[in-house]
Parts: sequence; structure tokens; C-alpha cells
Amino acid sequence: MITGKNYIGNQLSSEGDITFKTFNPELNVSIQNNFSQATAEEIENAVAKATEAFDVYKHFSGAKKAIFLRAIADEIEALDEKLINVYCSETGLPAGRAAGERGRTVFQLRSFADLVEEGSWVEASIDSGIPDRTPAPKPDLRKMNIPLGPVVVFGASNFPLAYSTAGGDTAAALAAGCPVIVKSHPMHAGTGELIASAIIKAAEKTGMPNGVFSNINAKDYDAGQQLVSHPKVKAVGFTGSIKGGRALLDIAAKREEPIPVFAEMGSINPVVVLPKALQNRGNEIANTYAGSITLGTGQFCTNPGLILGIAGEELSSFIDELGSKIKEINPSCMLHPNIHGAYEKGKQQAINQNKVTIVANLDGEIQTNYASQGVATVSGKTFLENSTLHHEVFGPFSIVVACENLKELEEIVTGLEGQLTGTIISDDDEISNYSELVAKMQNRVGRLIFNGVPTGVEVCPSMVHGGPYPASTDSRFTAVGVNSIKRWVRPFSFQNWPNSLLPDELKDENPLHITRLVNGELNKS
Amino acid sequence: MITGKNYIGNQLSSEGDITFKTFNPELNVSIQNNFSQATAEEIENAVAKATEAFDVYKHFSGAKKAIFLRAIADEIEALDEKLINVYCSETGLPAGRAAGERGRTVFQLRSFADLVEEGSWVEASIDSGIPDRTPAPKPDLRKMNIPLGPVVVFGASNFPLAYSTAGGDTAAALAAGCPVIVKSHPMHAGTGELIASAIIKAAEKTGMPNGVFSNINAKDYDAGQQLVSHPKVKAVGFTGSIKGGRALLDIAAKREEPIPVFAEMGSINPVVVLPKALQNRGNEIANTYAGSITLGTGQFCTNPGLILGIAGEELSSFIDELGSKIKEINPSCMLHPNIHGAYEKGKQQAINQNKVTIVANLDGEIQTNYASQGVATVSGKTFLENSTLHHEVFGPFSIVVACENLKELEEIVTGLEGQLTGTIISDDDEISNYSELVAKMQNRVGRLIFNGVPTGVEVCPSMVHGGPYPASTDSRFTAVGVNSIKRWVRPFSFQNWPNSLLPDELKDENPLHITRLVNGELNKS
Repeated sequence: MITGKNYIGNQLSSEGDITFKTFNPELNVSIQNNFSQATAEEIENAVAKATEAFDVYKHFSGAKKAIFLRAIADEIEALDEKLINVYCSETGLPAGRAAGERGRTVFQLRSFADLVEEGSWVEASIDSGIPDRTPAPKPDLRKMNIPLGPVVVFGASNFPLAYSTAGGDTAAALAAGCPVIVKSHPMHAGTGELIASAIIKAAEKTGMPNGVFSNINAKDYDAGQQLVSHPKVKAVGFTGSIKGGRALLDIAAKREEPIPVFAEMGSINPVVVLPKALQNRGNEIANTYAGSITLGTGQFCTNPGLILGIAGEELSSFIDELGSKIKEINPSCMLHPNIHGAYEKGKQQAINQNKVTIVANLDGEIQTNYASQGVATVSGKTFLENSTLHHEVFGPFSIVVACENLKELEEIVTGLEGQLTGTIISDDDEISNYSELVAKMQNRVGRLIFNGVPTGVEVCPSMVHGGPYPASTDSRFTAVGVNSIKRWVRPFSFQNWPNSLLPDELKDENPLHITRLVNGELNKS
Repeated sequence: MITGKNYIGNQLSSEGDITFKTFNPELNVSIQNNFSQATAEEIENAVAKATEAFDVYKHFSGAKKAIFLRAIADEIEALDEKLINVYCSETGLPAGRAAGERGRTVFQLRSFADLVEEGSWVEASIDSGIPDRTPAPKPDLRKMNIPLGPVVVFGASNFPLAYSTAGGDTAAALAAGCPVIVKSHPMHAGTGELIASAIIKAAEKTGMPNGVFSNINAKDYDAGQQLVSHPKVKAVGFTGSIKGGRALLDIAAKREEPIPVFAEMGSINPVVVLPKALQNRGNEIANTYAGSITLGTGQFCTNPGLILGIAGEELSSFIDELGSKIKEINPSCMLHPNIHGAYEKGKQQAINQNKVTIVANLDGEIQTNYASQGVATVSGKTFLENSTLHHEVFGPFSIVVACENLKELEEIVTGLEGQLTGTIISDDDEISNYSELVAKMQNRVGRLIFNGVPTGVEVCPSMVHGGPYPASTDSRFTAVGVNSIKRWVRPFSFQNWPNSLLPDELKDENPLHITRLVNGELNKS
């Protein structure tokens, strides 16, 4: 079933000599299949096919694209247990998580199908002409969003389904009218191929042009570099490390024609625990956060890596409780030995810093590739002085910072790099005394959470999954929710264009019955 | 009245030793005033003030910002003839143009005032929580657009009012809630200071925080470089040359925290004249285009620099007519000797290329700094082979390309760099036979015009002034119309946030009565 080949458009292809294998971290063994790394020629071919496909696909109606997106969801579901098994073997994640992520993935695909079928997402806008206006006639202008062109999507190590081959970036781009070339994540190339086969099957069944989707296998960086620097590629989506995302951003910025790169690169997701909350329910919060820190073995970009409080007895007892609760949680498997290695190294680097106190660091017999979860604590002063402690440790590790006072806590928040989320844990109305802190936090994050945990990213129109750099490379967009389609489209105007030749979205008679801004009024007429 | 000083926030300031003068191209003399180039310290101070102002200004209601924007418009109008006189002396442009551009500038300011007063531009979106959803509760999520932070705006040489100090970039940023630091264009620093004084007066009268606006004089590149690379600057707006815009983009891309640069860098605005139109009204089209090419001495980014047709008798007679009509037009003054010099050099370079035929190139007695308008013609083959001919010649010059056939014409269109506009001149329904051509043109431009001229950019919500690179650095935004505000804002989510602490835009009771997306339904309730 898994061939190890690339999809160059609808065609399975393996022209190259370089192969690689995926790895089962739970069993600590390589998996049988050999994946064929795409050659430069295969990649060139995929881009050429995508460029050709764009000329056809960009004209397809929302209804037609919706049929395609729903067919992808159906084909993914039809993969059934096979998908779950391959997913689990390539990630060490449990079947429940696999099923949940699959549910999220097909939900996203169907949400985008609904969006483009309904059609108002193009933000159609009409300003009627006034031919007899003086001193000059007012032209008739009509605007709508149109797709950018072929989009390259990089699969994420930690979300083989929802942020990879048929994940949010791909679903949004296909919905927008952009062909997609996926650079499959080499850690779960088998899962990627299964999903790619579902997309190709759906494309063939629903009459999509060959090249609307390709899937590229590569363990080396060259493939990504070739794709991002290719003149016919018009945008890039990425989820992963700051180092990886920035490298792609830099390649794109150096092109003769720079292109948009939306890279979501994770963060440490600061959590502020306010004094009264700490006093009244410190233990409960500690318990909740022990769960949030270790959820998915801490392998979420919204994992809470930094907890801030005002030093004192309550914070000390919260720290103790968090340490003891986190020790009670069974360790779990990480995605790959490399990720496990990087985690242990990062954690060790953090706790080896001067004046860092280890609160919990699981030891004893831990299975290979399983993470030893940990918590450390430092003073606000130490944290401010040592930027090593600001770095994300990807995995189940968190630092609790005991600040001398609110001023120091605010200083820490102000000095943070951009973050996906910020959380305030507050007792009832306590937060209303901290408007300055909230404002400072808002400057640094894309989403503010009240009395909750940052893990768990709801897929809905009001979600922002993004934030100031380096949480993302462009805070003006979100990676989650239907608004993520805006990353892959541009506004386009027609001036005095004949009504019969306008796209349906802009015709006088509004044949698609979409919501439009007509001479300043939003309506469906 | 004109002091030659910088505005560092509300304060006139001239700490540096370097000064420069503006120039009257009509009289070919320097103008009296000495403008003080801002020092690195003054620039640092302007950014610090903007950063402080942001913390206050970002919380101001739409109603309050509207009062400020309208006050700016009023203060600009109060400058009256003084502004017109300084404008004309610094640009060589006629008073009618100055008054027209002033009208456009205040219209833009008032349009943004209306936009933020009405309030729906924040695209508020609410997804209500479902606490008892299984397997996990659905959180309450609410999203709206918030300002990015301090924005640096570079004044444009060719639009001292509408694209400079209080132009579209500034108006949009102030409307969004972003303080603005203008790097005034050194060719019209006096006009810039007058407008800056109007903005400062308006800011003081309406209680805006000191630092919400600064105006920086500089003839050297260092000031711009310092501003764009400053960590506290969060976005950049620019209108000007490809070289200048790209330099700023590159500086921004190399920052530790890359920031958005929206640079609108002009284009050659291809015009296709279809055969029947040429046959039936070639002379009329020639006459219209002689006017469009020379409008404003060709100093518009929408100036038609490239006219494409199918070779034949009709095209030849169109070319002759265009040449003779353009010779009948009186030459006019360019903005500055440097711009005039660059124009003559660029035109000369184009017509000196192999196999280029000069159709018209005004000679004889032409006043100093006045442009000698010109038209040249080449075959499609020559144009395809020689990329020098694809470069913009900023001024009243256009190349007519005689293509061998439609295929060659389409090949030229496909190979063009990104353009602000594309125009099709068609006889009635003739265009319906050219859907392939139209599709190819759409790929390369931001706005398609039917039977008109690209010059004249209507300010309305349906306008797109932007386009694929290098027309702009990010085709996903427009520089003109109220939607240009989207360049300076980012979406922001609140999760489970207490209703009383939410911004008014997101409160349950919708106190601002704005249009919001509430659980999938657009409404004002």
C-alpha cells in the first residue's frame, strides 16, 4: 500500500537514488518502507504541473472546489484503520490522538468546502460608476479575492494530519484556488503518502486538473530550498521550528520576486498566575497545568513553557504542587529519537543555567524515546538576565518564574519575543486590577486566554493561531480557522468591465447570492 | 512659516548640522529654506515617542480617532493658498493639480474617519462557547483587528499630498491605531512640513498623545535605514522606485524581527488594443492615449508605458496618429532636475536599443526641466528578446509593440513583471474572444481596465492599487481605498475573556452597533 514514491501530480514517481526510512519511536526501530527522495527534476516537474493546473483550477467555482475538498475528507476517512496504524507507528502517538487529529483534519476540509460553496469569503465589493460625475466620470469598480498561484506547504513534525499533507495550509490553499505542492515531513512520510493518495484519488474522481496537488519526499534541505526559490511558486506555508521557518523566509526574501511565507514557529506561551487565584486555588491550577504541560508529550506549539507569578508563599506552594503533580503523570513517547534528543538537551541546557532550581525532573527507568517531564524555577531577575531561559524547549518542560513584584513581571512580559498565546489565571474580578499587564501581554501575543490552558486550538472563525514574530512570520494572518485562506489570495479589481464577462461573484445580478459590499452597503442583493 | 525643522512628536527640532534645500524646477532655482536633516538621536527620540504614544493611542475609540482624522483634514484645508504655493514651487506641478490632490488627501482622511467611526472594519467575530460539548468544552472565542504598532511612512516624490505626509499610508495607519513617523520626501520638504504642522495642530487640539506623529527630514539614506531597522518600528509604507522599495524590503527582511513592508513601486501598465477597436476607432484611441501618457508629465505610477497590438496596417496608422497627437501636446515641467535627468536618460536608453523605431521624440526649444515626451515602437520579437525595454521610464514615454500574432502578444503578457494595471481596449463584444489573454493579463496585474486609461486611481473600497511584485511588495494588500488599513493591523483573539473587560467591539451587547460575524451569521445584534 505504501510505495515510498512521490506524487508528481497524479503520477507516482521515484526517479532518484536516495532513499530514507521512517522510524517507530515506541518500538525504537526503523520502519520497513523506503521513501524515494524527489530529484530536482521531479520537483521541477511538480511545479510545472502546478503552474499548468493553476490556469484551469483558478477558474473553478466554489461549488466545484467544495466537491473536491469534501471528496478529500471522504477519501481520508476511507483510509480507516490503515491510516491510524501508520500514523501511530510513525509518531509514537496513541490511536486516540490519531483519530482526534483525523477528525480535525476532515472538519477543516469540510469547513473550507462550506466556505467556498457559500462564496462570500471573496469579499466582493462593488462601487458603481457615475458617468456624469464632474470633473471626471466615476468608473465602475468591482473587487474580489483571487488565488495567488501554486503554494508550497511544509508538513509539520508534530501534526501529521491537521498541519501537514491535507492540513490547514493545504485545505486553505486548495479552497482559495491555489494548487499545492507538499514537502512531506520525513518523519511521517508513510502517513503523508496515504493522505496524498487520498487527495489524488479525490482529485481524479472530481475532475481536478493534473498538478493541483503533488507530494514530495525529502530528508535533505535542498528540496525545500528548490521549491521556495522556484519562480513559479507564489507562496509558502510552514509549521515548525524557528530555525526552519526563518531559513525559508530568508530564501523567499532573496528571490528576484519575493513571495509571502507564512511560517508558524511556535512559542513558549506565557501564563501569568495572579496572586488571589494562586491563594484560593493554587493546587487546582497546578493540577491543570501538570496536564497541559504534558499533553501530547508537550509537543504542541501552544505548550505552556513559561509560568509567571509574584514570589511568595503561595507561589512556592504552587510550584511544589506542580512538581509533585507532574511527577505523577506517566511519561510518554516522543515523535522521534531526534526530537527526544533535542528535548533532553534543551531541558538540560535550561536547568544547567546559573540559579535555576529544578522542581521536577523525572528520572529512574524511562522507556527509550519517552520524555522525562520537568519543571524548573528561577527568580524574575535571573530570567531577565539570561535569554537562554526564553528559548522554547519543545516537550513537556516548563519554567516557573518567581517575580519580585508586578513591575518585574510586566518587564518580563514586555521583553518577551512574540508568542502564539498568553494566559491570565485570575480569581473572579482580580484581573480588572491588571489592565496594564493585559495590555502589555496583548502586544506580545496572538491570543489571550482567561483562566484556561493554551493547549487546545479550537478550529473556528474567531481563532487566531499566529502572532508577532517569531510566533509567526506575519502576524497579520492566522494559520487556523477559515480566515487562514487570506494568506493565499489577493484582492483584484475590474474597472468598467462588461457585466457578462465578470466572474459570477461580481455580476450585477449576484447569481451566487453572496454577501457583497455594494456602494457601501453589505447585502446579498 | 516654514522652519526647516523636524517634528519629533509635537516638538520642532533641528539638532543636526546637515541641511538641504528644495528646488523649484519651473524656475530652475533652489528655494530659500534650509531643511535640517534629522540626527540619529532625533530619529531615536521620534521612535521612542511613537512607542509610548502607541500604548495610549491603541486604546482610543474609533470615534476619537475619527475626530483626529477630520481635524487633520480641516487643518490641511486651513493652510489654504500657502500650501498650494509651496506645493507648486517644490514640484513644478500646476495649481489645479495641487488643489485636486489636496481634495483627494482630505477625502481620504475623512473616509478613514468615517470607517473607524462606523467601526465594522475591525472584522469582529464571535464564536460562543459550549461548556458542555463533548469530548471537550468549546471555548468562547472573539476576534478583532488591532493595530501593529509604530509605522514608518516614506513620502513619494510624485504625490506630495495624497501619498506622502498625510497621504493614504499615514491616514490608514492613524485610523488603525498606529502612530506614524514620516520620512518626508526631500524634494518637497516644505510641503511636508506644512502638512506635518497641520497634523501636529490637529493632534494637540484633539488630545492625541505626543508622539502619535513625527516628521523626519533627510536627504541621505541613513535616516530611512535607521527607521526601518529599528526594533520598535512594526511596519513600513513606501511609494516610489523599485530600487528604493526593494532596499527597504531587504533591510526589513534582515531584522531580527522581520516586519511587513508595503512598497508600491510602480509599473509600465500594459495596454492591449484589440484589432477591431483599432480598426474602428484607432485615431480616437491614439488621441486618448496621447493625453494619458502625458498626464502629469507622465509622472504617475499608472502611466501607460506599454501598448500592445497585432502588427498590421491599422496598428501602423494608430502608431502614426499617436506620434502626431503626442507631439501636439505642450511639454510640461517635471518634478525635479534629477527626475527629468533620469527620464531623458531612460528614454534615450530605450530608443537606443537595437531595432527600436522612434515614433515621436519632441525636440526643439524645450524649457529647462520640461520633459520631451516620446513614443517608440518595436516588434514583439524585439521586445521579447530585450528586457531593457521592459523597464519603466518614469515620465511621458511609451512603447508600442507590434506583435506578430495573438500568441506572441500573450507570450509578452505572460512574461511581464507584476503590474499595477492592465488595460484592454476592445470594440463592444470583441473582448469575449480573448478570454485566454484576459486570464494571462489577470495573472500579472492588480486591476484590469476595460476601454479606459490606467491613469486616474479612484479612491473607493473596490479599488486595488497594488499588484504582483514589483508593482508592490505584497499583492495581498492595496495602497488605495479604506481596505489599505489592513496593512497595519493584525487579528487578535480573546478566549473565555470576561465580557466587561473585552473591547467594546467584542462585548455581548454590541455597544458600538457594528456588523459582526456571530456564530457564522453576519449581523449587528
